[in-house]
Order: sequence, then structure tokens, then C-alpha cells
Amino acid sequence: MDKPNVVSACVLIIGNEILSGRTQDLNLQYIAQTLGEQGVTVREARVIPDDRDIIVDAVKYASATYDYVLTTGGIGPTHDDITAECIAAAFGVPLVNHPEIEIRIRGREAPADVMASRLLMARVPEGATLIENLTGGPQGFSMENVHVMAGIPAVLQAMLPNIEFSGGDTVKSRSVRAFMGESEIATKLGELQKQVPSVDIGSYPFHRDGIYGTTLVVRGTKLDEVEATVEEIRGIIRSRGSEPGEVNEGDGA
Amino acid sequence: MDKPNVVSACVLIIGNEILSGRTQDLNLQYIAQTLGEQGVTVREARVIPDDRDIIVDAVKYASATYDYVLTTGGIGPTHDDITAECIAAAFGVPLVNHPEIEIRIRGREAPADVMASRLLMARVPEGATLIENLTGGPQGFSMENVHVMAGIPAVLQAMLPNIEFSGGDTVKSRSVRAFMGESEIATKLGELQKQVPSVDIGSYPFHRDGIYGTTLVVRGTKLDEVEATVEEIRGIIRSRGSEPGEVNEGDGA
Repeated sequence: MDKPNVVSACVLIIGNEILSGRTQDLNLQYIAQTLGEQGVTVREARVIPDDRDIIVDAVKYASATYDYVLTTGGIGPTHDDITAECIAAAFGVPLVNHPEIEIRIRGREAPADVMASRLLMARVPEGATLIENLTGGPQGFSMENVHVMAGIPAVLQAMLPNIEFSGGDTVKSRSVRAFMGESEIATKLGELQKQVPSVDIGSYPFHRDGIYGTTLVVRGTKLDEVEATVEEIRGIIRSRGSEPGEVNEGDGA
Repeated sequence: MDKPNVVSACVLIIGNEILSGRTQDLNLQYIAQTLGEQGVTVREARVIPDDRDIIVDAVKYASATYDYVLTTGGIGPTHDDITAECIAAAFGVPLVNHPEIEIRIRGREAPADVMASRLLMARVPEGATLIENLTGGPQGFSMENVHVMAGIPAVLQAMLPNIEFSGGDTVKSRSVRAFMGESEIATKLGELQKQVPSVDIGSYPFHRDGIYGTTLVVRGTKLDEVEATVEEIRGIIRSRGSEPGEVNEGDGA
């Protein structure tokens, strides 16, 4: 059987500021797209508070359940930055100063209490490896299958490309538009989905500039199957007396 | 003891399109802010795929753990809209046609297969009550402490104000800016947080228009405690030889 090789990931978004609505998360979409290009599928994301027990439990669960775990947030120098100690607790290892980070931090002079705070950012779980990051922001690290990154999007985006993933088959995606409501084609789409279980047909209503319609997105690991399914959907749309519309891939619609 | 009355919520964001990165979620922030104003605190959010077992398990967990559960997505008429049947399964009740929705749908003529698809949107778990929605979009409903809404932000925003929540104490928030790195004040902030456990001090570095700094956000149910803590933080910033900056509340910084 030619089963697709699926490599999975879970994203843990750590931070009270996301849960309170103060900050709009922008990292999940970036991570999902970046991993998708490398054949890693995000299967779950959790937004959790700066709470030690909750973070430790979530890391244990995600690390055991998925091939990769990516965390965002909580790696700065303040009292609410508790991600590193939670990762250490989840893996049952001590938190230690990483010599490489410590040397770099000590290289920039500061009053004693400021230095003490900065040195909190040198702490990683024993056995962790560092994630390269040219922004000079807080240090990310990897512990087994868990990759720990900053919450600030610009810093996260400087870290993520430096993590290596062994991806599975990459998912290809093609879309087509129907200028009609979902109900017009829902029955036939459902039948088609049953005929082609190896691809995933998503239906997303849109309303833009006074035009209503439905975007149909076909995703799968085999491009020929994806394209053949889109062609079937074009036929379904035409059978309703309407010409299918093209979608500029990547325009988010 | 004058303990704050905390009412909690969990948000379940249902949809492959969020996990693939195709769509940026915009609902969590809106829900968190709207509930916060009513004294309901979002404690967790999960983004999960259009997968029956995963949705059922998440609904059971969230409904048992939190005062309120809000779901977004998966209530349209297509094969990938499985939220209603999953909520029914989670509560162990059958899925039934709601007479009020059915009458409304049948009032608009359509070919038999289109009508059949539209009628899928009349299905709610037995015992559910409807969420009013003037957009004419798919029907949201409430089942015990679980409130089921559309994923399209404009439709969700028409539904959420029509749900009644019995909130606890509302959380007040005040912010102040320090034009310095987090490490400069981290030690003193940590000490202050220990002295005032009833408020939550968050520290968020920012970089905008070439200016670096840290926004300190104090949150708590008692405004006098929140404001007194902000005043303490102003003193900490001044002790570093810098004048604290004001934050226009609501500018997201």
C-alpha cells in the first residue's frame, strides 16, 4: 500500500497576553506554512497561560504524541518567562547555564542585578542544543523533539529556519472558486470526497467586494490526484451552470 | 478572604484551514476581549482538525474543565462541517432537525439536492438552544455550557454578543512603558510580583519605529491594586534613570 508518510507537529503558544486578547497571535500561521513546505503537518495547536503545571503537562503530552513540538513565548529574562524551567521539568532534567550563552551575555557589561537577570536567559535544560538566532534576541533551544522559540514574530522568524526537520511527503494544494453558496454543490462534493479519500477537500465560503461564493481547496501528497480532484470539482460547478473561477494560490482566499 | 471570583472559558478553534496556515485565525482575540469585558477569562484555546474523535474528546474535556466552552468553525452544509454531530456525540444525545431552522430553510425554494444540503444546517444536538444571528449565515447553538459558532469572523461577531455569560469579577488592565530592555528592571519586577500576588505583571519587549523598550502590563480584578502596582513600576523605571512612558490603552502595544 502506497500510504503517505505523515510527519506531525504540535504548536504550544505560551502566554497570558494571547489568552487575554491583548496580543494577536501571528506565529501559528507562519509555523504551519513553514513546516508544511518541509513535509511536516501541524495537527494541533494549544494556547496556554504562563502557568507552570499547565505548561509542563502540555509539553509532556505533545512530545509523546507528535513527531515535533514547537513552543513560542516565555524565554525572556523576567519573572513570567518560565518556559525553560518547564521544559526541564517535563523532561526530568536540571536547568543549567549553557556556557556558550553565558560567555556571550557576560561579554556585555552591566550592573550586577541587570547581569543576573540577563543570565536567566542562559538557562537551558541539561542536554539542550541551541537554535541559531542572528537577531540577538533571547536564546531558543531544542530538547529532544521540542523546539523552544521566542514569542515575538520577528525573532521567531529568525529562529525557525535554523531548525532541521525530517519531513514526510509534502502536501500539495490547489484551489478553485464557485460563485455560488456551499449548499449548491455540497452533496456532490461529499460524494466526491468519499471517492477520493486520499485527498482532503475543504469548502470555505467567501464574501469579498460584494461577491459571494465558495473556495474549494484540495490538499494531498500526490499532485496528480490533487489536480484530478480539482478537475472533478470544476465539472461539478459547471453542472450547476456556472464557470469555475481561478484562485491565485497564496492570496489566502 | 476576599478572593476574586474567576469564571473560566476554553476556545476550541475547529478547522484544517487554520492548522495548515491557509487561514489566519482572528476569532480568539475577539472572543477573549469580548469575554474579558464580561468577567470571563479565557484560560485555554485549542486549534484542532476536522476530525471526529479529536473534536469529541476536546469538547468533553473542555466542557468538564471550564465554566464555558466556545467553538468556532465547521457548522456549514458541506461534508467537512462536522461540529454539530460531534457536539451531539460528546453529550451522548441524538442530532435532530430544529423545527425553527427547518422552517426558515424550507421557506427558500431550491432543487432537491440543494435543499438536502441546506437542511444539514438545521441539525442540532437534542436539547440545544439557538444563538441569534442576523447575518443569515449558518445557525449557531448552545448545548449546556458549550456555545457553537461559525468560523467566519463577521458571522462569529454577529453571534457572540447574543450569548449570555454570567461573568465573575472583570479584570482591569493598566500599562506603562520602559524605554530600556527587560533585563534592566527584571529583578525588581520579580520582587514586586512576589509582593502583590493578587495582580499579574506581564513584561513585553517592543521595537517600533527604531525605539526599543518594554511594555509592562498589570492586570487584576481590583483597580486600586492595579494602579498602585503600576505606580510602583513607574518608581522602578525612574530608579534606572529613565522617565516611564504612557500607553494608550487599547493600542495593542
